Amino acid sequence: MDMLKQRIRQEGQILSDKVLKVDSFLNHQVDTELALAIGREFARLFADKPVTKVLTVEASGIQFAMATGIALGVPFLYAKKKKAVTLAENVYSAPVHSFTRQETYQISISQKYLGPADKVLIVDDFLATGAALAGLVQIVREAGAELAGVGCVVEKSFQEGRGLLEGMGVRVHSLARIASMAPGEVHFMDDERTVQPIGETK
Amino acid sequence: MDMLKQRIRQEGQILSDKVLKVDSFLNHQVDTELALAIGREFARLFADKPVTKVLTVEASGIQFAMATGIALGVPFLYAKKKKAVTLAENVYSAPVHSFTRQETYQISISQKYLGPADKVLIVDDFLATGAALAGLVQIVREAGAELAGVGCVVEKSFQEGRGLLEGMGVRVHSLARIASMAPGEVHFMDDERTVQPIGETK
Repeated sequence: MDMLKQRIRQEGQILSDKVLKVDSFLNHQVDTELALAIGREFARLFADKPVTKVLTVEASGIQFAMATGIALGVPFLYAKKKKAVTLAENVYSAPVHSFTRQETYQISISQKYLGPADKVLIVDDFLATGAALAGLVQIVREAGAELAGVGCVVEKSFQEGRGLLEGMGVRVHSLARIASMAPGEVHFMDDERTVQPIGETK
Repeated sequence: MDMLKQRIRQEGQILSDKVLKVDSFLNHQVDTELALAIGREFARLFADKPVTKVLTVEASGIQFAMATGIALGVPFLYAKKKKAVTLAENVYSAPVHSFTRQETYQISISQKYLGPADKVLIVDDFLATGAALAGLVQIVREAGAELAGVGCVVEKSFQEGRGLLEGMGVRVHSLARIASMAPGEVHFMDDERTVQPIGETK
């Protein structure tokens, strides 16, 4: 998604070879037009799959789940994060380890809003270790819902997240895949669509 | 906003005379069409004020800030919540006491994204004690930005939030004002627009 990569090149702050800040347009201040375009792109990439609900995790996935829900004409659902290990009743829940914060938290979804009739598209802002997304995949499966796949806005392709999700049998599309970065420079991988033969869907 | 009140009557779960759950359509699962309509209504209510940026606080304000940003064609910004009392550099910050959780947290906004050139509309899902919204107002004023006002989706009018904000000189519009409630019944106040003389703006 060229518009997104251009913004990352122009406005992204690369603090180290692992830390990219995009808080001027994606996840603190949000460019609503860009967010809507991201939602339309996820809808396009998963157009071959019926989707009844978009799923994300609070907080920074919400704007992209909303945009994708708008593009698809379906509701979205966001998992809540809690430190408490005590499980509430009637929720699907999964533990997520945050390597950044060195702590484990729980993500949870009310069982009322996810079930075998749902066809779910998971979206999030970043794919890095994939821990939170793997937790969402686990919840979708526990609910007996069908998983269309995972859409990520920015993928740090040098981290293990995509491998983790693909190893779970999940189809992943990311809109900007960063092969490597260092302060002052960012290298993107080719878009999947330009690598894949025309007409192929995974 | 009749559509909203109808959904609250139909789907809201009133757990006590103070606790209303609307997580089937507003703040866990989100009806994207309704959220967009809410954004359009905030845009309409503040149409007499120029707005350059919508402001909210994570997580459950994000979908309404996004919808309002879409309706107004402006970006939105969400304050981050942190337990840490240590202040990061270059942020505007305010303490917020949560009566529900009996703890005080900090909300903060990067100074890069708010300044004297901004005309800000604050939105959130609930107005109850008004603590988080008062913190956002304080941040807007610290930044030297102009405040158009505060828009809330659901107001618990029997709590002190509106009084607190109006006491700070803030114009408040809420889309559903609950005068009182108890399990099985909810009583709304009249819409402000039907109470105010036509053409009046506060």
